Order: sequence, then structure tokens, then C-alpha cells
Amino acid sequence: MRLLLANPNTSQNVTDLIASVAMQYASPGTQIIAVTAKSGVPYIATRADAAVGCLSTLELMAEHATGCDVAVVAAFGDPGLGGARELLSIPVIGLAEAAMLTACMLGRNFSVVTFSAALVPWYRECVEYNGLASRFSGIHHVEGGFADISTVRHEKQELLVQLCDRAVREDGADVIILGGAPLAGLATEIGGKVSVPLVDGVGAAVRQAETLFALHPVKARAGSYKQPDAKQITGASAALASLFTDRT
Amino acid sequence: MRLLLANPNTSQNVTDLIASVAMQYASPGTQIIAVTAKSGVPYIATRADAAVGCLSTLELMAEHATGCDVAVVAAFGDPGLGGARELLSIPVIGLAEAAMLTACMLGRNFSVVTFSAALVPWYRECVEYNGLASRFSGIHHVEGGFADISTVRHEKQELLVQLCDRAVREDGADVIILGGAPLAGLATEIGGKVSVPLVDGVGAAVRQAETLFALHPVKARAGSYKQPDAKQITGASAALASLFTDRT
Amino acid sequence: MRLLLANPNTSQNVTDLIASVAMQYASPGTQIIAVTAKSGVPYIATRADAAVGCLSTLELMAEHATGCDVAVVAAFGDPGLGGARELLSIPVIGLAEAAMLTACMLGRNFSVVTFSAALVPWYRECVEYNGLASRFSGIHHVEGGFADISTVRHEKQELLVQLCDRAVREDGADVIILGGAPLAGLATEIGGKVSVPLVDGVGAAVRQAETLFALHPVKARAGSYKQPDAKQITGASAALASLFTDRT
Amino acid sequence: MRLLLANPNTSQNVTDLIASVAMQYASPGTQIIAVTAKSGVPYIATRADAAVGCLSTLELMAEHATGCDVAVVAAFGDPGLGGARELLSIPVIGLAEAAMLTACMLGRNFSVVTFSAALVPWYRECVEYNGLASRFSGIHHVEGGFADISTVRHEKQELLVQLCDRAVREDGADVIILGGAPLAGLATEIGGKVSVPLVDGVGAAVRQAETLFALHPVKARAGSYKQPDAKQITGASAALASLFTDRT
Amino acid sequence: MRLLLANPNTSQNVTDLIASVAMQYASPGTQIIAVTAKSGVPYIATRADAAVGCLSTLELMAEHATGCDVAVVAAFGDPGLGGARELLSIPVIGLAEAAMLTACMLGRNFSVVTFSAALVPWYRECVEYNGLASRFSGIHHVEGGFADISTVRHEKQELLVQLCDRAVREDGADVIILGGAPLAGLATEIGGKVSVPLVDGVGAAVRQAETLFALHPVKARAGSYKQPDAKQITGASAALASLFTDRT
Amino acid sequence: MRLLLANPNTSQNVTDLIASVAMQYASPGTQIIAVTAKSGVPYIATRADAAVGCLSTLELMAEHATGCDVAVVAAFGDPGLGGARELLSIPVIGLAEAAMLTACMLGRNFSVVTFSAALVPWYRECVEYNGLASRFSGIHHVEGGFADISTVRHEKQELLVQLCDRAVREDGADVIILGGAPLAGLATEIGGKVSVPLVDGVGAAVRQAETLFALHPVKARAGSYKQPDAKQITGASAALASLFTDRT
Repeated sequence: MRLLLANPNTSQNVTDLIASVAMQYASPGTQIIAVTAKSGVPYIATRADAAVGCLSTLELMAEHATGCDVAVVAAFGDPGLGGARELLSIPVIGLAEAAMLTACMLGRNFSVVTFSAALVPWYRECVEYNGLASRFSGIHHVEGGFADISTVRHEKQELLVQLCDRAVREDGADVIILGGAPLAGLATEIGGKVSVPLVDGVGAAVRQAETLFALHPVKARAGSYKQPDAKQITGASAALASLFTDRT
Repeated sequence: MRLLLANPNTSQNVTDLIASVAMQYASPGTQIIAVTAKSGVPYIATRADAAVGCLSTLELMAEHATGCDVAVVAAFGDPGLGGARELLSIPVIGLAEAAMLTACMLGRNFSVVTFSAALVPWYRECVEYNGLASRFSGIHHVEGGFADISTVRHEKQELLVQLCDRAVREDGADVIILGGAPLAGLATEIGGKVSVPLVDGVGAAVRQAETLFALHPVKARAGSYKQPDAKQITGASAALASLFTDRT
Repeated sequence: MRLLLANPNTSQNVTDLIASVAMQYASPGTQIIAVTAKSGVPYIATRADAAVGCLSTLELMAEHATGCDVAVVAAFGDPGLGGARELLSIPVIGLAEAAMLTACMLGRNFSVVTFSAALVPWYRECVEYNGLASRFSGIHHVEGGFADISTVRHEKQELLVQLCDRAVREDGADVIILGGAPLAGLATEIGGKVSVPLVDGVGAAVRQAETLFALHPVKARAGSYKQPDAKQITGASAALASLFTDRT
Repeated sequence: MRLLLANPNTSQNVTDLIASVAMQYASPGTQIIAVTAKSGVPYIATRADAAVGCLSTLELMAEHATGCDVAVVAAFGDPGLGGARELLSIPVIGLAEAAMLTACMLGRNFSVVTFSAALVPWYRECVEYNGLASRFSGIHHVEGGFADISTVRHEKQELLVQLCDRAVREDGADVIILGGAPLAGLATEIGGKVSVPLVDGVGAAVRQAETLFALHPVKARAGSYKQPDAKQITGASAALASLFTDRT
Repeated sequence: MRLLLANPNTSQNVTDLIASVAMQYASPGTQIIAVTAKSGVPYIATRADAAVGCLSTLELMAEHATGCDVAVVAAFGDPGLGGARELLSIPVIGLAEAAMLTACMLGRNFSVVTFSAALVPWYRECVEYNGLASRFSGIHHVEGGFADISTVRHEKQELLVQLCDRAVREDGADVIILGGAPLAGLATEIGGKVSVPLVDGVGAAVRQAETLFALHPVKARAGSYKQPDAKQITGASAALASLFTDRT
Repeated sequence: MRLLLANPNTSQNVTDLIASVAMQYASPGTQIIAVTAKSGVPYIATRADAAVGCLSTLELMAEHATGCDVAVVAAFGDPGLGGARELLSIPVIGLAEAAMLTACMLGRNFSVVTFSAALVPWYRECVEYNGLASRFSGIHHVEGGFADISTVRHEKQELLVQLCDRAVREDGADVIILGGAPLAGLATEIGGKVSVPLVDGVGAAVRQAETLFALHPVKARAGSYKQPDAKQITGASAALASLFTDRT
């Protein structure tokens, strides 16, 4: 199975991290193809960043999905997920979506712990968009800035553990999602220090992608995710234009 | 007051229509600056189209908002609205948002009537995103295609009136929103034929923009719409890059 | 445009305040007709007060709406709004409704700050009645009594600013509504001291009334706000009896 | 136990009906005091009617509650209930509230069957106000007018049975509430013809009033139903003025 | 009227307590038949306990309901209620259900106070199952263990009163439910010490059972609570097997 | 990885079917241990059946979970899931839960198609219990009875395909869940005939079980799924008693 990990951020070192963690969680036989946005922001945090990231997701999917069996929007918050799910004929899932739905199988309520205040409003909207507000118990973030996005999980590790403890104590969380692609791999490192299950977004997404593949779902020919009619698009890459325009 | 109407679609003739209807609804003293996306699709209908349109909205806002007092995302569904509201220091509203909130002052439930099946899933998500599902009574669309987006409101006028009647009869709608920028101006033309109030999205947006301006709101320095911290962005226009990067 | 401001409270000095603030927010060409309830309580705060105020609203509308283009229930909480909207052939809106829907265009969540604990339960019910609980982040009130309802906004100004700060800090509010007709005009005075946009209920209502007028909505002949069938009523003023009984 | 049945409608013959049915459902030892509004409309059906009825409820309660142990707002829709619950020191419940909460113990979903289209919007709002939308499966009404409010339950009996069957078939209703005080007593008459349990609003209210009395609840000294502070009121009956003003 | 109180716990002394309190609240003419589970746990607190208790409820109902007019699942949380309501031809209600719906007639929001942390998750699910989350303001529990389930209401009385005060102060509760069958009778003892009404679950259930009986509801022959088709069951008591299998 | 499939029904041939389908969906290296309830009903359909099945689930888990890595409640509707998740130290998931959460990654709305009317109420409650009502678009069932539970998927195949079409056409479903363990394997057989993706409950559960195992979640030591304190239980198997009582 070939799994496309499309990182709509421009940080190659975050893509490297995601790919590495993805391989740890993947089943034997799953091949990871990890790609990075050519334009946009180093790390998508706000609604504005996400608006830019949407297009990057589509561009990456258009360029790299051919030959893949399933695709993952490899940024927590899932920018461009709905559009990609419409356009592609293979299943597409998002990091946040996968993490949240997986968390629902480990407990009644999940909280999110993340590394920057800037992410909070967008993550909240993501919970609501998924219709999971009744399963959501809160979100906690590290205060202040950080030195390097690709190592923030180590730099702030102690604070992140403390925030997990706080989510358990204050929110009564049954499960905690470590939110944000740069926290990939952290669940394994701190799992023993937290008293409830942790969900790694990348781990969840890889496994859920395998799940969808195993179900061999048809591409919808009806409903809200059928492939849209052909439409002209200007200013897009040739690959993306082809996704919008070519129908066979 | 200078009001920026940013059409994230590439159809200049739809922009012309919007601008013309906007002037009919605007107060004396309101100046309309209507601009059209340079890239993207002729008419945003699906989640995929909206993902592309998000960036167009930001690009247009970045290039044209200087000197304006308020800005409108001139596409029903409001692609890029949240990001624009974060980045700009002036109030920004969306066509769908303005139409729905205005409708809530004319009745308990509103239905939406629109001209293409392709728009329905995205409009539904827009209702939910705005937290207005409990005020929403249904959506009805013209079946089949149309000849010209800029005159679809005339081509399908009879069918649109019939759909309004159906919304009244089947949904028990108190108010009907004519959904989609290409239906701008239609409310005036068919108002006498429908038994409940109609809301014109462009009319509502122009007047709501004036309302926000009249309240002279400060730019948020806290909460989820404060201006994000400066961030590098690649592959964007100079104007948009400046919006992301420059902070004074 | 003639705009009827019907204050269902008996405080003439609050009506004077509302009228004065309304004129500051109104467009040129909007004429304000402000009237005061002849019976009832000086200031509607509780459900019991509102039950009395409902009838005052209808009586005022019945007596003064003729010749007006749009009407406003000029008490936060909107007592009698639904009934007036049914009976009158012109659009009718409420102060709270207008403030809340306007706030939704300035942010994701709004909080309410008000001047008395007695108002809180009724205001909460008003939020729920409007189906906006998912957009509501909290309500804060000044503790203790006050000297004069018509100047409470100055007497308690410092405390009200502190409560706004608290709403930002504790609720994460994007916008704050200054709740209650006696706080009319306060937004202008303290806007510079609060870090998120403020909504003045009277200002919002006046502008929304103008918006509805600009849309020239038909009087509903179907749905839940069509004019009720003629019905006898006893013990009401001649004007209100006529509204219930006369149909042409 | 003395139970006050306050009918905020002016129809004495409906009060007589309610009183008669109340006595059939009451426990031995329960004394029914049934009173009729002196002003207002013969039958409250719309939001406008309810706005008038609110005050009638308070006037009736003020005049007659002394010496009673519990009070019932004897009109489906419960106009003035919240205000009465604040002001009085005895428990107060409403016909609709009692019927809906009782229905929840007989099934998962309840539908409402009533005798006039005019009642539907107000009843729907009543369901929502009580937070029971998730338990509500629909509302059905007899089309057209009727000859006499006090005998409409016999005049339309066949149609009402058909509507009950329709609620079972189309809504999947587990229970049906016969909505509206004029349908008092009908449940007993048609119970054998309908395949799910029926709830008589008057019967439910009388029994729930007895239940509250049996619990001997204290009058709230905190929360949203504590007695409001003394307040001057003009234009009200001496009894109601005393309820607003006198505190010991 | 014969009222079956089926305690799915194995604690005979709790059954004795429930029966005693039930008789205090019951109307003259109501005969209480209180029975205790032969197997299971002494006190149902968790989801696991409830899973065991479900069957005990059905077994008790099967064995003892013949000749009774109405039945009560006499454990807060109502294990097995839905199944019993399907199988039996008499009305069946639960302690928690009765307490919550009764509380809704005494105020806008209710909180729950209980004696053990272990009960909290299951009680929260019970609130949600009943669709009453919008009426629920919180739950508070005594920390730590207790000496004897049948006297925990006295052992922890002071703490329970403090938790009631906290519910009023922190939750803004209008009403408080004393949650758990072992707190039966406590409302009478501490009612004078708490500033809002208290609801005794056993008292509420007994009275609601009488209410349902008074309405003489038919056994549903449609909807989700009609009697299931006959089905073979193995490993059950003869009485329960008969309930599943015998249809006349 | 050893995966326990606990079928709380007594039908060995359904267990055989489930086990066979599970092996088709399982990854290499996953070993399936499928066990059948010794007591209860042949097929759990109603709330009453589920109340019996809860205990069977716990008994099976208690007896067979030792040495397994993850467990599945192999009946759609998930009887006893919460209790098993509390008691066991390995992850436990349910068929319905797994199917619904998986469906959420394939579309916005899912409908359920099942083979018997008796299952509908319980399945609806299961959707609500999981907090997924906003993602649920409807449920459709084959009318009438069937010959053999273990082959009903073939006997009714044509009707089931027609119901899938109806869910697409009437509900606008993006995804369809084939509900009920006896429909295991059907998705593969009819996938080509339906225009939207199908979810096989057994396939989803097996893959989700593997996902949870891959995340290596700790057993909760806090939150609502931590292991309950030791408690005596009577009338249970030695294995289940040990689960309740023994703590190390």
C-alpha cells in the first residue's frame, strides 16, 4: 500500500519528522511518500495560515497522488481535506480528524494539548466542524514561543507533560491528543508519564489510512463527496488544473 | 465609507453584477470598490473550489483593502473569511454570513434557494459553521446546468420562484435566502411573487458592512481574531506577504 | 425612514438616553420616534418584569407604528418581539437580537457585560431562544445595586470596563455586548479601553432596522410570522384591539 | 392540598372543562380552584396572544394564589410561567411543561397533536424553550377552523384520532400529547383508538402539581428563581403590585 | 395501586431504606412492593456495575411485576429501564429519570450531588441519554470512601450539605438532585439548610409512578416501546424467559 | 497480535461468520479468537436483548481476554462496551462504534441499512450515545422477518441493495454502514452495486482494534475509564468475579 503524506507546511524538517514517525506506526507493506508544500508558511497555525494551506494541500495531492492508495493531509486542522476528498478517487483523511475519531474509541472525552496559543482557535473550529463538540473536554497550550518547530516537542516536553496532567485533572479527560504535526512521536516518549491514553496524530492517521484502504471503498458517485463536474481553473499548477478539468 | 467587495471567483461579469446590486442597496456616501480574483475558478461551488478561493480572497484583500473601511467576501459560502478577519484591521464579513444573520431578524427559520446542486453540501457546512443549524429549515436547488453564470438568475427565474414556494410549503420557512452571488438583485425582481421575505445576499452584506462600520469596532487585540504574529510566507503576492509579515 | 423605538419600560429618562444614542448611530434620513410604556416597571430585569413588558411592547407598537417603516423593541431581552413581529406589517427587531447577531459578524464568540445580577437569567434565556448558545461565551454583571438607572453607565463605568477585561481573559470572548438599554452609548465612551470590539445594543438595533428596511421585505403571508387571523380581545387599548381584530 | 388552575384565556367554558377534567385526575384531598382571565383573548394561540396572556397569568396568580399550595398555568404553551415561578413562594408549573416531561417517562420521542394551525409555531418554541427538541418527533394539527372552542375536542375527534395515527406512522412517535387546554379529557375518550400512550395536559399538570407539593420544596433563595427584589409597578392590579413590591 | 420498587443492587438494607422513604412519599392507597436483586453488586456505581444490573432489573421485573400497576427501577442511573419498558405492559420508570424530569419543573438548571466519585461518569451519561444536557449544571461528589452504604447519607451529611452550597454558588443551580438510592430520605432532613429546592429520587419516582398510573396509558402497540416479538432466551430465570417468549 | 471477538449473542453460526470476515480484513499477524455467549438470545435486537447481552459481554471478556491484546464487542449496538472498557486493561471497542467513526472518515453523513425493524430504536440510541447525531442521516430496514440469521445477508441481498440506494437518494448519505453482525462480509459482495462507500462493521472493528493496539495506549489510571475499585459480586462466573474483585 502506498500512502501519501502531504504536508501543506513548507518545513521540510517537519515533513522528515512526520515521515519517520509514520514509518514507526505503519504496518509492514505500507510505503510512505512524504511531500512538502513549495509555498505557504513554515507552520500553519491560524485561520489565515489554513486558508493558504488549503491550496497547498490540493497542489500536493494533485502532483503526488497518482499511484498512491490513500492520502493524508499531514497538518493538524486538516486544511483542504474536504476539497481533496471530493477531487481524488482514493480515500483522503486528515491528521486532526484521525486523531479525534481514534480518541473516541479510547474514552468518552478527549482533550487536546498543543505547543502554541496561536493554534487554539483553529483547532476549536476543527472540533466543531467534525461534530465532536460533545466529546471534547478542552484544549491546553504551552505559553510563549519556541526555538525550532522541528524540535519543539523536546524543547517543551516537560511543559507538555504538565499540560497533560492538567487536562486530566481539570477537564476530566479520558484521552489526550497531542495536537500538531510537530508533536509527532511524542506520545511514545511521554506515554509512561501520563495517566490516560495519548493519541499521536501521525500514528492515528497512518493507521486510519490503512483502515480505509482495507475497506476498499468505492469512490462516491453520489452524495456530497462525488467528484465535481469538470471546471476550468486558472493560476493553478498543471497537475491541479488537470484534477479540476479532466474527467474520463 | 469605502467598501471593498472582493469576489474570489474569476468571473468579471459576476463582479459587475454584484457591484451594480451593491450600489442599489448601499447608503448614500458608501463607495463600492469591487475586485475580481485573478486566478481560481469562474464560480466557487464545491469544497475544492472554496479551498482555492480562500487564497484568492486573501490576495484580493491584501492588494485592495488599504484605504477601505470595511470589506466583504463577495461569494456565498464566505471562503477565506476567517483568515481575512484575522489579518485585516478593518471589519470583514461574508455574503452567506450576512444573509443568514439578517434572515434571523425576519423570521424563526430560513431556507436557502440556489441555482445548482453542486453548491448544496458546501452551503450546508456554512450554516453549521455559523452555528445556525437550529434556525435552518432547508435548501433547494435548480436541477441541471445553466447557460451563463452571470444571467442564471433570469434564465432560471421561474424555477427559482417555484423553489421558493416549495420552501414555504415543505420547510415552513419564514424567510428565504437567495443563495449565491449570481442571484444578486433577484430578490427585488421576484419579491412580489413569494409569500415570505426574501434576503438578497449582496444587499444584506452591503448593509451589514455599513452597520459594522457605524459601530467603529476596534481591531481585536485579544481573542481569536487578534492579528497573528508576523510569519514568513513564500509563493504569495507581495501584498499578501506583507500582510503576513509586517507588523508595526 | 421613520423608525419606532418602543421602550416597554416606564423610565422616560432611559427612553431619552436611547433616543439620543439612536440618533448618533442612525443614517441621515432616519427619523427616530421614541416612546415609553405608560404602565409596567421602571426597568425590566426578570422574567416577571418581561411578562409585564410584553403587553407594553404590543400596546406601544399598536399606538405608534402607523406611519413608521420599521420598529424596535427597545429593551434588551426583547419582550413581546415575537408577538409584534406577527401583528405588524413592518419589520420589527429587538435590541438583544440585533446586538447578538451583529456580534456574530465581529467574532466567533460573544460575551455579555451588564449592570445587574437580576438580568442574568433572562439574558441567558434570550441567548438560547435565539439559538445562539454555541456562539455565547459568558455573561458578567456588576455586583450590588446602583443609584439611578439612567446614569448607571457612568456610575459603574470602571467596574464595567473591568468586567469586559474579565470576559476577554476568562471567556476568551472575541466581542463583548454591553447588555441593557441603560448602557446605550457606553461603547463609544469605553471602546478605547477594551481589547476587543464592543457592541452597543441601541446602535446595532438602529442599524439593523435600517438594514431590514433597505431589503424591503414583504409582510409574510405564510410561515410562522404571517398576520394572525382576527380575534377579539378584551381589556386592551383601542389601538391594540384594532391590531388583533381588524383585517382588511 | 389546594391547587390553583389559572386560565389566562377569557373563555369561562374552557375553564369549566379544565376544572372538570382536573378533578377526574386529582387525588382525593386535592381541591381545585379554577380561575379565568378577565382580559385577553378567548383562546391563546399565537406569540401575540401569549404576550397578552403572560400578564393575565400573573394577575390571576397574584389575586388567587394566597392559601393555595401549588399553581398551574392552565394554557398549553405556559404563558407567564417563568415570571410566576419567580414571584410566588409556592411551586408553579405549566400545562405544556407538565405534559412534555410526563411524556418523556412513557417513551423516547413524543409528538403533539392539536386542533389549530395557529398554535404550531408557539408550541414549537415551547418545546425548544424546555430544551426537549431531541425528544420531540413532530406536531400535527387539524386544518381549518372550528365552531366552538369548548367543544372542539368532540367536533374534530375523528380528525384528531387520524392525526394521532399519522404521528405514530410518520414520526415514529412513542407517545402523543394532546396539545391545548380545550383538548382536556380527550385522552380518556380516544385512548383505546390510538396505538401509543396519550398524555392529557390537564391530567399531567394536576398530577405533577401534586408531585411537587409532595416534595415540599423550599422557595429558592438563590439561583434564577429566587424572589426578585421589590420593584414599583404601575398600571397593575393591587394584587399584582403587591407581589412585585411587598417583601417581608 | 401496587407499585413495584425493583432494586437491582444486592443490598437489602438499601432496599429497606428505599421502601421506607417510598412509603413516606406515597399517596394513601399506594402499596409498595420492594424487592432486591439476588445477584450482582451491593451498589451499582460504574458502567460495569450497571451492565450487570441491567439483567437484575429484568429478572426482578419478570418475577414480581405480575399484579403490579407500575414499576420503578430503584437505582439512580436506571439500569435496564429501556428493556423493562419494552417488555412489561405496565409503565416503568427510573429513579434518575424521575428525579431529573421533576427537577425541570422546579427550575431551569439542576445539579446533582452524590456520595462517591465512582458514580460521576455513569450519571453524566444518564443525563445525556435523557437528552437533558442543556438543563444540567454540574455534578459534585463526596471525596473518599464511606463506612456503610445504608447510612452514608448520615455519615457524610455535613459534606453533602456543603456540596449543595457549592452547586448553588459555582453552578448557579436552581435545583439539586440528591443522586443515588442510598441518599433516599436525605432531602427531608437537610432541606432547610440549602437555599434551593432539593429532589429526592425515591420521592420523585414514587410520585411519578402514581402520575403515570393516573394517566392509564395503553401499552404501546407501535413505536419503539411496543412489546418485542417472542424470542428464545437461554440461561435466564423461568420468569424472564416467559417475558421474552410468551405472547398471547 | 491476539484479537478477542466476543459475540454476546448465542448464535455460533453468526460467530463463525464474524470470525471468517474478520480474518479477511485482518492484517497478517493478527490472530482472531472468536467466542460466543453461553446464555442470552440468538440475536440481540432490542433494548431488552441488549440488557441481557451486557452481562454476556462481560462474562466473555472475563473468561477469554487474558493473553489477548485488544477486544471487540462483536454485536452492533455494542452491549456492555463501557463496562468492558472500564474493567479490562486492554483496549476494547464495539462494532457499531468502530463502524460509525470509520464512516466519518469517508463522508460527512452516514446512514445505516439493516435487516430488521426491531433493531432500529436501539441503533438510533447508539448513534446518540456516541454523540454522532449530527453526522447521522438516517436508518433503513428490511420489512418483515427472515429465515436464518446466519444467511439473512444473502436471503435479503436485493432488498438491502435497494435500501442502500434509498439512503443515497432520500438521505443524501455520503456513506452507508451495513448494520448488524449478520451482515458481515456483505459490503464486499455488494460494494460494486452501490454508489457510495460501504462500511462493514466487522471489517471496521478489526482494523480499528489493530489501530488501537498500534498506539500502545496505557490503561487509564484517571478519567472515567480507569479500573474501578475492587467490589464483591455475586452470581457471576469465577472469571467475572475476579475481574470485579481482584486488584494487584
